[in-house]
Amino acid sequence: MSFAQATAVTPDNGAFNAEIHPGWDIGGNANGGYLIALAARAMSAASRPHPVSVTAHYLSPGRPGPVNISTQVVKTGRTFTTLRGTVMGPEKPILELLGCFGEVENVDGTVLVDAEPPAMPPPDECFKLEPSERGFPPPLMGKLDVRMHPEDAAAFEGRPTGQPQTRGWIRFPDDEPVDAFALMLFADAFPPTIFNTELPIGWVPTVEMTTQIRGIPEPGWLRCRFSTRFITGGVLEEDGEIWDESGRLVALSRQLALTPRG
Amino acid sequence: MSFAQATAVTPDNGAFNAEIHPGWDIGGNANGGYLIALAARAMSAASRPHPVSVTAHYLSPGRPGPVNISTQVVKTGRTFTTLRGTVMGPEKPILELLGCFGEVENVDGTVLVDAEPPAMPPPDECFKLEPSERGFPPPLMGKLDVRMHPEDAAAFEGRPTGQPQTRGWIRFPDDEPVDAFALMLFADAFPPTIFNTELPIGWVPTVEMTTQIRGIPEPGWLRCRFSTRFITGGVLEEDGEIWDESGRLVALSRQLALTPRG
Repeated sequence: MSFAQATAVTPDNGAFNAEIHPGWDIGGNANGGYLIALAARAMSAASRPHPVSVTAHYLSPGRPGPVNISTQVVKTGRTFTTLRGTVMGPEKPILELLGCFGEVENVDGTVLVDAEPPAMPPPDECFKLEPSERGFPPPLMGKLDVRMHPEDAAAFEGRPTGQPQTRGWIRFPDDEPVDAFALMLFADAFPPTIFNTELPIGWVPTVEMTTQIRGIPEPGWLRCRFSTRFITGGVLEEDGEIWDESGRLVALSRQLALTPRG
Repeated sequence: MSFAQATAVTPDNGAFNAEIHPGWDIGGNANGGYLIALAARAMSAASRPHPVSVTAHYLSPGRPGPVNISTQVVKTGRTFTTLRGTVMGPEKPILELLGCFGEVENVDGTVLVDAEPPAMPPPDECFKLEPSERGFPPPLMGKLDVRMHPEDAAAFEGRPTGQPQTRGWIRFPDDEPVDAFALMLFADAFPPTIFNTELPIGWVPTVEMTTQIRGIPEPGWLRCRFSTRFITGGVLEEDGEIWDESGRLVALSRQLALTPRG
């Protein structure tokens, strides 16, 4: 099943029906970026096509099965429509969102880029993440082709670098085109940065995640860098960049997560 | 009038009344961080005391006068309460928010900090921003004591560094204590980073702003750094850090703004 099929939404009486499909999960719970993509498709259908900035707060885990996504337009402006979204599971809300959507055209192009895509060995020389029966890497990796920078992947062999950073390549296994919604999935698809610290390895529950979409990528591999600078007061941020094969930044993300308790 | 008075909220029939006070503005429109502080006070009163992460989308300018702030709890969890907020002006909504609030205690302390406070000359050797009758620096600077790094302030004399960065000191003029809500104001109080680029100097309208509060600062000056890495497709992000006098990061912010059109 393609990503497009796995995140399809159907209008129903002013809201949208959708399905959390199995396989896009980590230990049975749908990946957070997958859930944002699902919600953002509904929000896009209810407003304007192109997500510009979407913020999601995580309320409860998303299990496979039907969900209902309601949307409420807050403002329709000249350039953007701002709206809320709620992903409701069979029993309780899963995700609450606020975002703005516009047109796909990026009229002004690139004015300034004061950063570089992460330097990495080619995908074939990186560490391919494949789902393991032990639960890690998670089932989600069966839906993606993820190649981690070998230095960062050394954490899996008990040699963390000490620097909370995760760099790697990503694409869909069958070269399915990457749209803005897939970028939202990719921004949350890599192993947590803190695997490379001395913190206990454990679930890093996301509290809030904001993704800015800056462009639609060229076909091909995407380069990603995720990093954490501040682990304080029981929380940490994870900042992400996604660059396309032409060297253009296409997404910028930040999430706030709880420090694992071991 | 103190910041606490200027951002006071009064419960009224399940919502809150508040007032946008004059003087906290840029060209007649209330500063965006001031508006977030006002809304966050109401959201805090409706949930838990300490803002952890608050996202605001800007809908229309806030002019001095009464506003009504409604809140709606989305989830009350063990650690955080997640809720929405809407700041409604006399005619139309001004701000729509989504955030989570918890307790003030930061039980886990600092685990890792992979960054340093910005190096700057002492406040007396920095460029003090005082409100000008020409409108820039704006009236807001009469409510704050802001000292910009001389290198970054050179932009005001027509010598932009070319690097979209703004560093400086900030505090209240009368040493009013800085709480979490004041940090939300401070995170949006400095001149835009792009003053140091070759872009036309103009209004940089914020689309969305997310502020994470990581701690309550020690008394004294706060060190701030704001930077922009990507100006693409008509938008730019501005990333902020606020550090207290003990060298601790107390707030992390990111806003998405529209590129000025000149």
